[in-house]
Amino acid sequence: MSKDLHMLPSTAIEDRLEAGRLEIDIHLQEIIEKAIAKGHGEVAKLAGQVLLAGGKRMRPLLILLAHEVAGGIDRDQVIPLALAFELIHTATLVHDDINDKAKQRRGVPTIHERAGSEKAMIAGDWLFVQGFALGGRYDVTIVEIMAECCARIASSELQQLAHVNDLATTPEDYYSIVSGKTAQPFAAGCQAAALVAGLGPEQARELGEFGMELGLAFQIVDDLLDILGDERMGKPRGADVIEGKMTLPLIHALTLLHGDSRTRLSEVIVGFNDGLWDELVELLTEAGSLEYARTLVRNHLDRALSILRQFPQSEARDCIESLTQMVIDRYE
Amino acid sequence: MSKDLHMLPSTAIEDRLEAGRLEIDIHLQEIIEKAIAKGHGEVAKLAGQVLLAGGKRMRPLLILLAHEVAGGIDRDQVIPLALAFELIHTATLVHDDINDKAKQRRGVPTIHERAGSEKAMIAGDWLFVQGFALGGRYDVTIVEIMAECCARIASSELQQLAHVNDLATTPEDYYSIVSGKTAQPFAAGCQAAALVAGLGPEQARELGEFGMELGLAFQIVDDLLDILGDERMGKPRGADVIEGKMTLPLIHALTLLHGDSRTRLSEVIVGFNDGLWDELVELLTEAGSLEYARTLVRNHLDRALSILRQFPQSEARDCIESLTQMVIDRYE
Repeated sequence: MSKDLHMLPSTAIEDRLEAGRLEIDIHLQEIIEKAIAKGHGEVAKLAGQVLLAGGKRMRPLLILLAHEVAGGIDRDQVIPLALAFELIHTATLVHDDINDKAKQRRGVPTIHERAGSEKAMIAGDWLFVQGFALGGRYDVTIVEIMAECCARIASSELQQLAHVNDLATTPEDYYSIVSGKTAQPFAAGCQAAALVAGLGPEQARELGEFGMELGLAFQIVDDLLDILGDERMGKPRGADVIEGKMTLPLIHALTLLHGDSRTRLSEVIVGFNDGLWDELVELLTEAGSLEYARTLVRNHLDRALSILRQFPQSEARDCIESLTQMVIDRYE
Repeated sequence: MSKDLHMLPSTAIEDRLEAGRLEIDIHLQEIIEKAIAKGHGEVAKLAGQVLLAGGKRMRPLLILLAHEVAGGIDRDQVIPLALAFELIHTATLVHDDINDKAKQRRGVPTIHERAGSEKAMIAGDWLFVQGFALGGRYDVTIVEIMAECCARIASSELQQLAHVNDLATTPEDYYSIVSGKTAQPFAAGCQAAALVAGLGPEQARELGEFGMELGLAFQIVDDLLDILGDERMGKPRGADVIEGKMTLPLIHALTLLHGDSRTRLSEVIVGFNDGLWDELVELLTEAGSLEYARTLVRNHLDRALSILRQFPQSEARDCIESLTQMVIDRYE
């Protein structure tokens, strides 16, 4: 990895990112307040519990910055896009959490835990609608990018369901699932932001490719944190393993191990419980799977940065680099 | 009710409506096929099972005809809008059916019955996305009409949940729920179609008002059919009563009856089962509630038609009148 990935974010950059987060939070708050004023108080308040509970705002921040990197000047033009992606992202979280029976999200109880899955489903639908209402302000190219992105999320979720506890899941399956579910929204957001900024389709696709690589790194870090644990995740260590989700380290180890170790790993994964933690980590270490995942993270981030650096240096570009660094900082 | 409401639809009108339905079916089929070609086969096929299972296509037909009544000439301009409303309508059905644990929809098993509620939720999300992708082609006024319509659907669904088995539900509550849940999509569709046709905002709102009245009539007919039974409904007689949904005849009877009859009606509603049918119908008849509901249907339809007739006579207007008549034909 190149050296300047390790640059410490200057206070200026940190301030800018924090200001961006605050700006997004204020706009999201306004959406909820406007909906309450229009008489949609119950659904808006329910949805608002998760929407306004914070979160890193990674996607909307990235969109605002990508717009600037692409030469965009009028911030007002891109704000609805950034909010749209955050609203749609939150909608998928609310619906996913129902399916996963998750208890917490962004540090607060999930909507279905508070109000039941019927209301949570409706609140998720409402968030989708708010997102598409904002996205629908843009021209058809951008609407289609958003729609294709959401369709891929749905397809990948089905694919993921089909591979629950499937020990034969291949790395190719994995990449197909996570590129659709996690990385595509990063890619679509960056590409759309670039188009809003007035960049040509070719260059916008490049910035989309940056988002894709960043999103893949982001997902693999999530996989690592599921095994290594991180209280900031707001979900218990091992949630994915318990749900039977085939994360990259598991898939790698299942492919690489043979004989008794492979048999034992299968047993540990299928019958996973808290008492099996140490053994799981040992087996993954034996297979070199955690190190392999770390290498992939670095590769994806390196590719992301090399694309990014084709764009002229600017404060916004420094901020994106800093944001990119934060992805890896989550476990390092 | 005016006499010509009873006109028999001419073969020409019937043919036109049937041709419209076929046209819509072909477009919907194309959407599914295109999604399969794009690699979204699993979710598209799942969603397609309900989307392509037929149905009256009342909403998209109405939109195509309203566009013409409003002076629209280029049918291609309004097709995406008609499809968008049908897709979104189907999305809400798929999600509603999960919540209601419904076994059948449009004569076929519901998606969650076939594939489980996890996949059904995702299929519903996908249908929403397809709908908004088409709606997003239009300018912001129309996107906002669609978004507000969907937000009202969500709000009304929550309100309806809050009134399940609530014997104190007022006619005002009822109208607030059904205008949001059922009539608003008719209203929004007609209003948006009129705008697409180039009508001014004031006249477009008028056509929206026609849709609202028609939608209210449609809902009250549904309420009547739930009690009187109709095999074409594709749901068992009494489904609403069993689910504790407060339909108009129940609300009216609870308001009107006193003493023993009121007490008995409460017991029948709360502890409803098939053995209580005759008694329920007797109590509703005693209160005049079925007749009251029929009167309201006629009033709403009369208002709908009187608005419609402010627009110049045309083949399309005759078709809408015919469609309006079909609403009442469902129980008469």
